Amino acid sequence: MYIEGKNAVKQAVESGQTINKIFVSQNEKGRGNTLLDLIFSQKIKVEFLPKNLMDNKSKTGHHQGYIAEVVDFEYCEIEDILKVANVRGEKPFVILLDGIEDPHNFGAIIRSCECAGVHGIIIPKNRACMVNETVIRTSTGAISNMKIAKVTNLKDAIKFLQENDIWVFSAEAGGKSVYAQNLNIPLAFVIGSEGFGVKKTIQSACDGVLALPLCGKVNSLNASVACGILVFEVVRQRLK
Amino acid sequence: MYIEGKNAVKQAVESGQTINKIFVSQNEKGRGNTLLDLIFSQKIKVEFLPKNLMDNKSKTGHHQGYIAEVVDFEYCEIEDILKVANVRGEKPFVILLDGIEDPHNFGAIIRSCECAGVHGIIIPKNRACMVNETVIRTSTGAISNMKIAKVTNLKDAIKFLQENDIWVFSAEAGGKSVYAQNLNIPLAFVIGSEGFGVKKTIQSACDGVLALPLCGKVNSLNASVACGILVFEVVRQRLK
Repeated sequence: MYIEGKNAVKQAVESGQTINKIFVSQNEKGRGNTLLDLIFSQKIKVEFLPKNLMDNKSKTGHHQGYIAEVVDFEYCEIEDILKVANVRGEKPFVILLDGIEDPHNFGAIIRSCECAGVHGIIIPKNRACMVNETVIRTSTGAISNMKIAKVTNLKDAIKFLQENDIWVFSAEAGGKSVYAQNLNIPLAFVIGSEGFGVKKTIQSACDGVLALPLCGKVNSLNASVACGILVFEVVRQRLK
Repeated sequence: MYIEGKNAVKQAVESGQTINKIFVSQNEKGRGNTLLDLIFSQKIKVEFLPKNLMDNKSKTGHHQGYIAEVVDFEYCEIEDILKVANVRGEKPFVILLDGIEDPHNFGAIIRSCECAGVHGIIIPKNRACMVNETVIRTSTGAISNMKIAKVTNLKDAIKFLQENDIWVFSAEAGGKSVYAQNLNIPLAFVIGSEGFGVKKTIQSACDGVLALPLCGKVNSLNASVACGILVFEVVRQRLK
């Protein structure tokens, strides 16, 4: 699999991800380039290519001169996510995605979650966007620092979290205001898909429904924006 | 100009925007369709087209059976934005965009701002994304309820807001935590561009720099997500 773009490649190198080789545009050579210096300092194999070959190789069309060839993304188990919380000595903070299909949304969600200190993301195996080149690029490298578990059944995952004393809330219009909920607890949010929100069967498996108070005439936010607002409300409450 | 997609067309009809004609896919006919009923009830001219002609007409490729032909988007003056605040009896709440170039980001920002009750958005005339079909579609119709002013000089706009007793903050890494700032005041945020953030010259024209506390290794959020988090922090504080 390829990781494309300066930020994404930089994050991959810094996080110590296994990189087979990095293709670099010849234009980047001898420019006093800090990213190139970093790559060389890590003794990663580099192949310089002319721009047209880089363009051919790119799957997203936005390589910015850097394409890293890495082993395929490794999904983790839910237990691994809880271990991260444990190692950091923090109350678990998990995001479940109920069928996000747009890779740009998925990538932006990974980026926001990483910035907010989320310990891991759980996605369903079917009818959802998997980690691909566009997701990696949109996450601007955040994916290198984020655990992602792929599960057969989201309801079982919710049950597992609840058995581990984690409160699971779905984010959906009509719920209790998120600002009225104490979020400084072991916590998971379920974010719904772009078109349909959180499925009723998933909602009923949760401990509650939380909503953002919307003031306008449009009745929903973009999924990745909604997720960003929610995870940063957790940051705000936990910093207090 | 065209407005495409069910939500966007519905918002355009409901907001009373001037619509020349709505092209509707023949598949939508006689389906007990509430959007079509709404369009007929408003006595708007409708032309049914086969799906392939709809596809040809569409500029975004996502028309969902509905394309409204409207007069070009009408930008407003900054004064009009302040009037909205006045009419609603609210403290002014304005967003300035310092060179957002991605229409998906711009559309998502308009959507978040509408949901958060922002009174208007100010964009620069040059080197920035203007309102186009993709912006309108991504805003899911929010644009019909949002004032947008296009200005030659963003610094002059900031000065004008300040002269009207509005506090202008730029959103940029390294600033004071937004959670430590009272936002229940007449307020404007400047959101930076995807690649470069808020320009130094713009930052220095502001009354202060506010930042979100980032916990991860990635050092910035997507511009539309950052804007969403900031405007909803205002909502939270003002609801208290």
